Amino acid sequence: MSDNDKLEAIRERIDSLDQQIQQLINARAAAAQEVADIKLAADPDAQFYRPEREAEVLRRVKARNTGPLDGEEVARLFREIMSACLALEQPLKIAFLGPEGTFTQAAALKHFGHSVKTTSLGSIPDVFREVESGICQYGVVPVENSTEGVISHTLDTFLSSPLMICGEVSLRINHNLLSHEAGLDAIKAVYSHQQSLAQCRSWLDHHLPRAERVAVGSNAEAAKMASDASGCAAVAGETAAEVYALPVLASNIEDEPGNTTRFLVIGNKDAAASGEDKTSLLFSIRNVAGGLHTILSPFAEHGISMTRIESRPSRRGRWDYVFFVDINGHRNDQSIAEALAELEKKASLFKVLGSYPRAVL
Amino acid sequence: MSDNDKLEAIRERIDSLDQQIQQLINARAAAAQEVADIKLAADPDAQFYRPEREAEVLRRVKARNTGPLDGEEVARLFREIMSACLALEQPLKIAFLGPEGTFTQAAALKHFGHSVKTTSLGSIPDVFREVESGICQYGVVPVENSTEGVISHTLDTFLSSPLMICGEVSLRINHNLLSHEAGLDAIKAVYSHQQSLAQCRSWLDHHLPRAERVAVGSNAEAAKMASDASGCAAVAGETAAEVYALPVLASNIEDEPGNTTRFLVIGNKDAAASGEDKTSLLFSIRNVAGGLHTILSPFAEHGISMTRIESRPSRRGRWDYVFFVDINGHRNDQSIAEALAELEKKASLFKVLGSYPRAVL
Repeated sequence: MSDNDKLEAIRERIDSLDQQIQQLINARAAAAQEVADIKLAADPDAQFYRPEREAEVLRRVKARNTGPLDGEEVARLFREIMSACLALEQPLKIAFLGPEGTFTQAAALKHFGHSVKTTSLGSIPDVFREVESGICQYGVVPVENSTEGVISHTLDTFLSSPLMICGEVSLRINHNLLSHEAGLDAIKAVYSHQQSLAQCRSWLDHHLPRAERVAVGSNAEAAKMASDASGCAAVAGETAAEVYALPVLASNIEDEPGNTTRFLVIGNKDAAASGEDKTSLLFSIRNVAGGLHTILSPFAEHGISMTRIESRPSRRGRWDYVFFVDINGHRNDQSIAEALAELEKKASLFKVLGSYPRAVL
Repeated sequence: MSDNDKLEAIRERIDSLDQQIQQLINARAAAAQEVADIKLAADPDAQFYRPEREAEVLRRVKARNTGPLDGEEVARLFREIMSACLALEQPLKIAFLGPEGTFTQAAALKHFGHSVKTTSLGSIPDVFREVESGICQYGVVPVENSTEGVISHTLDTFLSSPLMICGEVSLRINHNLLSHEAGLDAIKAVYSHQQSLAQCRSWLDHHLPRAERVAVGSNAEAAKMASDASGCAAVAGETAAEVYALPVLASNIEDEPGNTTRFLVIGNKDAAASGEDKTSLLFSIRNVAGGLHTILSPFAEHGISMTRIESRPSRRGRWDYVFFVDINGHRNDQSIAEALAELEKKASLFKVLGSYPRAVL
């Protein structure tokens, strides 16, 4: 067989595969419609988006994948297939911390797929309000926003919002060194948000050991300052480079090549158990010094691992601190339910922010 | 059967469909690898991206689609499946007119799917250079850029570049009225790029009949001006609203709800015939008045329809004009080949910029 004949035969095979794939995707959408019909008959306000079910599907796709496509890549395709099927039943509106083209929008599309409608909002509290009012069903916010120019601590907003966490998204984020200077020798000062400076510390230690590091409010502000003065550079993303017309002197300078930023998906309720879940909660105690160890003891006793703990000054009283804690597991797991009940008794303020599937993609 | 039993049965059906879909998608990727192996054995520099073949696949997907998913939506899923399969054979790098998050990046991802690597560049000539140098295999540029702040006529760049057009992308673009003023009554002047003002003329006639319209260099510049002065508004996109912290007084004010902007895909060669193609060319004549009618006569004689003609002053001589023409059909079609040969004899400058599939999505 000539090469051309061989190629023609393979192309015919691909065309036949495509027909089957298309048929099956439409069969899947029809099945999803049947689910919607049954749910709507029982409850006219039924919600069709089920984060735990989607996480299970994506995990299974990755687990059973044999290639040649990478499991991550196939999961991404299924994310889009589920997104299209869901849009047929119930078009989702997702609020995100704008503007368009930011990492948070990328996180929203990564989590929900491209068949949703995204709405850009100017602040984290605005995203919460848009979801609370029902204009959008879900919102996506960075846990702490440093790279996109608005300094706002998302966790604080949960103190006054009834919304819950129903998902998390991880996104890889790259930093660049931006400057009008022609070379590193001329750089006397480096501006950036504190967190970005920390994420690039080794690179800065090695390449710019004598340059002063100045922490400023946001990476965009840093880029603006670096564009106005000589001998200066900023650590910032590509968008800031373009907005302030600053050349990229060095790219991907973050110490951890897998430098990821975490975003939360917020909605009116959290997710059912998916098998691999996290639970976020906040609590407050009066006497921090000895109290913290005591209040956390139920986790140790029940063998529950904390993946993150952070303290924030409360705005309520002078000596009040609020702690934000993430643990592995779902709040309906028996051991976690017991530990949370014990912790609640000891805390002056206690709130479960939600249980949700660990990020799959 | 209870609702829960019914739902469980449907979910099992969906899981089984998902397994089959996954298997078929991987079989498709394996077949694409076979194609790559055969091509590589014959030519180590073989290119695997074939725009005409992708356009054919997408057209067929739309034509045979029976639902319930919309044909456009299924085609979008196949765009992603093909993107993933191609990335396995040959990871594509696509240069686009930046910054990140602009319409041009959206156009690039719409055309190539999300499995490519996109590189943001600061100007249209930079995009051409990035592709000419081989750093990126393809580039995406707006045909005329008005909304994204750089005024540059892409077509002019073809005069001095060996690159060809191998695809087109259409993107729906929305305009908003941005202002610090609380209501329309206070608006005395509206700034925007001339093209955006024209696209919103009816809306402006109706809602702001007395406001002066001022054409400025770009929509971003318009937003900046409106943010600095009172009694002013700008017509611009959502990004500009966020960057300049300008509230949106009215959204989607374009006269044609399907207001689309066209982008070109550029590469080292154009595309083979796909069955529904366009051809772009440029030519120059000395005496425009009578000459234009004469030079275009071969198209009429061969029954070829022009979809666009535009004249641009040439930078080469005082009385030289360059005409950019799009026609329906492929340059290898016999009637078009004949017409082009006749036209070439009459022109002082003549260049076929490329034949490529009409935009499918």
